[in-house]
Amino acid sequence: MIVVMKKGATEAEVEALTAAVAEWGLKAHVSPGTEVTVIGLIGDAARDHEATLALMPGVDKVLPVLKPYKRVSTEFHPEKTVIKIPPARHGDRGLSIGGTGVVVMAGPCAVESREMILSLGAFLKGAGAHMMRGGAFKPRTSPYAFQGLGVEGLRYLAEERAVVGLPVITEVMDPRDVEMVGEFADIIQVGARNMQNFNLLKAVGRCGKPVMLKRGLANTLEELLMSAEYVVSAGNPEVILCERGIRTFEKFTRNTLDLSAVPVLKRESHLPVVVDPSHGVGQWDLVAPMAKAAVAAGADGLIIEVHPDPAQAVSDGAQSLTPKRFKELLGALELVARAVGRNLH
Amino acid sequence: MIVVMKKGATEAEVEALTAAVAEWGLKAHVSPGTEVTVIGLIGDAARDHEATLALMPGVDKVLPVLKPYKRVSTEFHPEKTVIKIPPARHGDRGLSIGGTGVVVMAGPCAVESREMILSLGAFLKGAGAHMMRGGAFKPRTSPYAFQGLGVEGLRYLAEERAVVGLPVITEVMDPRDVEMVGEFADIIQVGARNMQNFNLLKAVGRCGKPVMLKRGLANTLEELLMSAEYVVSAGNPEVILCERGIRTFEKFTRNTLDLSAVPVLKRESHLPVVVDPSHGVGQWDLVAPMAKAAVAAGADGLIIEVHPDPAQAVSDGAQSLTPKRFKELLGALELVARAVGRNLH
Amino acid sequence: MIVVMKKGATEAEVEALTAAVAEWGLKAHVSPGTEVTVIGLIGDAARDHEATLALMPGVDKVLPVLKPYKRVSTEFHPEKTVIKIPPARHGDRGLSIGGTGVVVMAGPCAVESREMILSLGAFLKGAGAHMMRGGAFKPRTSPYAFQGLGVEGLRYLAEERAVVGLPVITEVMDPRDVEMVGEFADIIQVGARNMQNFNLLKAVGRCGKPVMLKRGLANTLEELLMSAEYVVSAGNPEVILCERGIRTFEKFTRNTLDLSAVPVLKRESHLPVVVDPSHGVGQWDLVAPMAKAAVAAGADGLIIEVHPDPAQAVSDGAQSLTPKRFKELLGALELVARAVGRNLH
Amino acid sequence: MIVVMKKGATEAEVEALTAAVAEWGLKAHVSPGTEVTVIGLIGDAARDHEATLALMPGVDKVLPVLKPYKRVSTEFHPEKTVIKIPPARHGDRGLSIGGTGVVVMAGPCAVESREMILSLGAFLKGAGAHMMRGGAFKPRTSPYAFQGLGVEGLRYLAEERAVVGLPVITEVMDPRDVEMVGEFADIIQVGARNMQNFNLLKAVGRCGKPVMLKRGLANTLEELLMSAEYVVSAGNPEVILCERGIRTFEKFTRNTLDLSAVPVLKRESHLPVVVDPSHGVGQWDLVAPMAKAAVAAGADGLIIEVHPDPAQAVSDGAQSLTPKRFKELLGALELVARAVGRNLH
Repeated sequence: MIVVMKKGATEAEVEALTAAVAEWGLKAHVSPGTEVTVIGLIGDAARDHEATLALMPGVDKVLPVLKPYKRVSTEFHPEKTVIKIPPARHGDRGLSIGGTGVVVMAGPCAVESREMILSLGAFLKGAGAHMMRGGAFKPRTSPYAFQGLGVEGLRYLAEERAVVGLPVITEVMDPRDVEMVGEFADIIQVGARNMQNFNLLKAVGRCGKPVMLKRGLANTLEELLMSAEYVVSAGNPEVILCERGIRTFEKFTRNTLDLSAVPVLKRESHLPVVVDPSHGVGQWDLVAPMAKAAVAAGADGLIIEVHPDPAQAVSDGAQSLTPKRFKELLGALELVARAVGRNLH
Repeated sequence: MIVVMKKGATEAEVEALTAAVAEWGLKAHVSPGTEVTVIGLIGDAARDHEATLALMPGVDKVLPVLKPYKRVSTEFHPEKTVIKIPPARHGDRGLSIGGTGVVVMAGPCAVESREMILSLGAFLKGAGAHMMRGGAFKPRTSPYAFQGLGVEGLRYLAEERAVVGLPVITEVMDPRDVEMVGEFADIIQVGARNMQNFNLLKAVGRCGKPVMLKRGLANTLEELLMSAEYVVSAGNPEVILCERGIRTFEKFTRNTLDLSAVPVLKRESHLPVVVDPSHGVGQWDLVAPMAKAAVAAGADGLIIEVHPDPAQAVSDGAQSLTPKRFKELLGALELVARAVGRNLH
Repeated sequence: MIVVMKKGATEAEVEALTAAVAEWGLKAHVSPGTEVTVIGLIGDAARDHEATLALMPGVDKVLPVLKPYKRVSTEFHPEKTVIKIPPARHGDRGLSIGGTGVVVMAGPCAVESREMILSLGAFLKGAGAHMMRGGAFKPRTSPYAFQGLGVEGLRYLAEERAVVGLPVITEVMDPRDVEMVGEFADIIQVGARNMQNFNLLKAVGRCGKPVMLKRGLANTLEELLMSAEYVVSAGNPEVILCERGIRTFEKFTRNTLDLSAVPVLKRESHLPVVVDPSHGVGQWDLVAPMAKAAVAAGADGLIIEVHPDPAQAVSDGAQSLTPKRFKELLGALELVARAVGRNLH
Repeated sequence: MIVVMKKGATEAEVEALTAAVAEWGLKAHVSPGTEVTVIGLIGDAARDHEATLALMPGVDKVLPVLKPYKRVSTEFHPEKTVIKIPPARHGDRGLSIGGTGVVVMAGPCAVESREMILSLGAFLKGAGAHMMRGGAFKPRTSPYAFQGLGVEGLRYLAEERAVVGLPVITEVMDPRDVEMVGEFADIIQVGARNMQNFNLLKAVGRCGKPVMLKRGLANTLEELLMSAEYVVSAGNPEVILCERGIRTFEKFTRNTLDLSAVPVLKRESHLPVVVDPSHGVGQWDLVAPMAKAAVAAGADGLIIEVHPDPAQAVSDGAQSLTPKRFKELLGALELVARAVGRNLH
């Protein structure tokens, strides 16, 4: 912690501060400058006294120097985390997220029917996708909009996994549902609007399944890492970070996909990073270029909305790929992945 | 719903669209323009087909014309909602929020101890505050920060109400806690980070207590109204809207207090509007001018952080007023309230 | 300047840095912490080496401690700047901006005709306004929109001043026009889109007239102060700062009027602060509450759009007050001004 | 133009509006809905009456349907614009921007000396760069920062072109300098802070050189296209659009590079699109992944800061690549370009 004194702060003010600091068991290094005096505080407990310091006479500002996250940081845990998803069926191969392979998760915004999940799942598996996405609980801005099939939707996803063989990622919105969703899902997703729902984070931190944490619409990457820290510190080290677009002033796109999040998060943290170009842009014709860009930027995976008939989708139809377009995209992605020394399986 | 066709859309495309629309039981009014054709769709069900329409050949964009919120809107409910808070003790007077009086809620960020709540409560009541605020459950960015006293904190607040007589507003973060918090609180607060925690909104919509809903850090006022619509549509008509500052690029202040939210919300909705200048600016010396400005802009109430010793506060010390400064502010606020035809009683 | 070393930086890296610093004639205070080492650099020249330091081995980050603005800051110039506008006509009283009186500037967005300026000017003066605003050069997003009457418009404003007696504020957009506009205007306005047009700032810094500098749509207050520093350092100490709304995600209002700018700027700087509620909100019915709030927050003046017939305005009609509404507003503002110890004379 | 009437608007209000519209020579199509009435206005002149319409009794809102830009749009000009840069020296090959090749512009933030420009130019040409960048006029937030070498810097760039053979792109900040800069530069750059300096746009619209227009820090893509429309409508059809990062809340990066700008601009407009990853991220170690992502997203070119010794750069050292790293990046970019069906020459 660094304390910058005001221009014109008195010696008595500096002494009062160092005396207080000594009482808290911290050491103070005073650097008297030509214009202002700067005081460095040594000791982990300094953070607890930040507000007190800021309000002491003669203090201009207090600057923290340590990163607020630990368990998720590269500094404290330099080896990359690779998350293993066990095979969905006997005889299938499992998946690794965070290794050299780029993992592709695909499926509809919402689970709409059993038939849809089973037939789309079969198509996606044939096309080369690695996991199936689909929401059973849907966070919707309007109380009058479709809220998801709930447990019924989870059952269809489980059936897909058993029959077709794609492991499943699905969202949980309520701490009361975490245990149940964990029984159906291979990866539990925490959505953007719940990135700072701290009780939900604690709950998924106690379930035994990997968690994919989506960045909030107006949250910084430091805040995303702090939310990941909640999950890890509650006991669950298997967290995947997901960039899905942030809110900006731009109106052509639904959100602004911040692809610099990929190299920043991979520098700051050991956790795998997945990109959601579908929510990032909100229009199907922009998904392919942004998916390719995400792989070129170093993403460990993609999560892409695919719908058998986007025009009839109950939600997010405008940003969903048709199965045919998705299959073409996978071919293009393989080329980009190889150009940056990776591959799609 | 209005559909704007692309420049160069064919007659066949327009006909295909009107045919589809007829099948859904909607009427289409076609306005062929000199450059583009515009089609107005009549019927409430049009919204269900928004994505389908957007993806039809020849369509440029789809513009909704109806407001997405109903129950909270002035259009559907022109009379102002006035929320009655019953007296805390036998013989006390109750409170009205949304009438001509400006209601002042005050207290610490977090409930820190029984002694603090009782003695500060007595001071605040003497100074002229109307309600006591204090968090027992604290949403914190870091898992390592103080998370609140929990139920113990709620008990101190209840004791303050019984002994001192200020009704209590306190936050709930988890749907599992709503019923319990409702037993202690006169108003249940939903915090900014939970503004779109839809399951929490549904839960507070089923409790029998007034709810104060804080605007999210990067949410629009329309989204705030939609979240209020969740609460009201779940059965609870007593919602107070709270502006508490939004995230902008400005760094001198913690957030940017959007005071235009006050006249906008009072034009669009019948619900009372309260302003939180403490979180809005984050520095105690800016609280007084912004509190006065909020009253001048027409706010129905204020919620202000006061701490007996801000430098020792476990959270938000930098933005807390001392009891002395709070009392001075109340005097200044009374003058501004009268200048705009209101009062603090 | 403070240099924070990385966790795990070596002693050799610290030594290399202090050696380099010594060569530049600066002193380094090293504070070895339990986790990271912090180095305070003493001497004004430290800023010149910021990039070099940031790129040295073992360095995590470099934090500046001094404010980047000087001449406009309260630290270097504690006495408030009061700007005197000489009387427009012989026998009239002059104006002071930055004293106890709140100054009201009013008029149309654009100068549309001689008749409009003269008759509206007479009304505004009678109603109690202190200055007339009106654009002769209009910055417009579209090249096809009305670009202003140019010099002809300036002449009408000059005629108003000579005949009616209200001093004039008008915008300059081009360094080539500064001298000419300075001959017509009492205050030269630099618009929001030109806040960082540094050559224009230098040019108005060399003209002999007071300058009102509007905050850019997405600029911080520190950047506004730095732009004011350009003007002052070029030789012109008479700068008025103007908050006119910033871009946020909110859609009900054209911009978000950041009224906390008022107390922040008055704390950081000695320059007067004026608020433009018309551009800040963009809708006439929100102008009155925000104008009252601005005065309550401590603004030294207001600049308000008034049009004889808003529905026929060539620009900004939606946010313009009718003369009648403006006159009513002045009465209401007087009450608020008195409530905070000021007046409109 | 579409007019949406308020719920409860009377028939008389609708009739008054259609009568007014008829007087302006426009046709009105009235669509009476179950909840609100919608009126479509036909005729180009409708836009001139937008404010009048918005203020008429019974009107809720007015929605424009036509795009505000024409000359730069794909609708009015479907063929892609390819800009030819003539060879710098006799015998060299010229360049095409906007064709299948991806053009790489590289060089220092600021021209610092003759020696630097000549030797770096020789290196860049050898490494495979296509153009040299370097600022002679520097827009700086602080009046005390280095403002560029001015004409002297332009002369060094001209010498590089004559001797080394890389064509030159450099910035102009002042309408008074446009003609002179046009004599030295192959492409004139308008910087982000001047994107809405409309007089500068008009001036570069009258010079005979291609113009690269950078997106402003908080501007939408529609505003960027409108600014390009200024240049084209002033007579200069050779405009290159440049995404260079926008301001967001993210703090790890200097700006947020919005790569979705690439496919959006290429869909909406026929103009070439260049990406500046250096300003977009602000840190050299993030430049390579974002440059690769830009090419994968479909960019027609890149502009990258390279400095012979970044630690000694007078500006932007932290985001500059060393020559060695730049050369390695070019190799990696070639692979990504081929993966998306393009190449680097």
